[in-house]
Amino acid sequence: MTKRYFDDLPAGFRFETDAQRLTLDEILDFARQWDPQPFHTDAAAAADSPFGGIIASGFHTMLVGFVLTLKAGVWNAASMGSPGMDAIRWLKPVRPDDELHVVAEVMSSTPSRSKPDRGATVIRYDVLRGDGETVMSYTATHILRRRPA
Amino acid sequence: MTKRYFDDLPAGFRFETDAQRLTLDEILDFARQWDPQPFHTDAAAAADSPFGGIIASGFHTMLVGFVLTLKAGVWNAASMGSPGMDAIRWLKPVRPDDELHVVAEVMSSTPSRSKPDRGATVIRYDVLRGDGETVMSYTATHILRRRPA
Repeated sequence: MTKRYFDDLPAGFRFETDAQRLTLDEILDFARQWDPQPFHTDAAAAADSPFGGIIASGFHTMLVGFVLTLKAGVWNAASMGSPGMDAIRWLKPVRPDDELHVVAEVMSSTPSRSKPDRGATVIRYDVLRGDGETVMSYTATHILRRRPA
Repeated sequence: MTKRYFDDLPAGFRFETDAQRLTLDEILDFARQWDPQPFHTDAAAAADSPFGGIIASGFHTMLVGFVLTLKAGVWNAASMGSPGMDAIRWLKPVRPDDELHVVAEVMSSTPSRSKPDRGATVIRYDVLRGDGETVMSYTATHILRRRPA
């Protein structure tokens, strides 16, 4: 894993993650624990819903995207946590056996005025399905350590 | 569980959930699977981090808040999913044995122009610690079924 600091991730920096397939069992297991709504957990109820079948919890899609992002190892070594996320959009349903990967781009990079050892890096993330459709997007602010002088 | 429709949740409607305590083991289990950053999973590394000890993944706080919200059963019966969330803010760290509950208020309620059977309900959620501090806040848009004519 390359050790990147705040300074190594300017606006415009792009990266992409590996892909991961979501199985029906994973979708059901996640939803039973964290999002037990019938269109995520009950095949018959889901068939009768506007979605026409089981779809993954949007939180599941977000977390699979986040784990893929951590595995890509782009900013992990400098991470000091996150103050928040914005503009989370679930654009398309994710169904069993869909394969997901993430495409990311740094939108802004702002050194802290009060703490010279860190900066705030805003990254836009798009989660894509195997067919190239974007199923989810969001931006996250990451507090990243600056390269030691 | 009271069956509420879109029409029963006007702007200004407020509700509160039960509370749930997060144990160290739950925090570690969640983070190992979904957010394996050292300040969530490794006591020694966390002690050396800006947080001074293990803190819960912000995603964990969000999902515990969401499950408490589902258990409160306010909008579930009418739920047709969500197009997105905004302004997710992690305001204070959540530490082992913190007890969390959610306070929510409907911010806006807009009937769909194209689909007369539903509307969009925007709810602001605050996740509070036992000491009354808000540790996290976010808004979510819920698509809710209208009361049948």
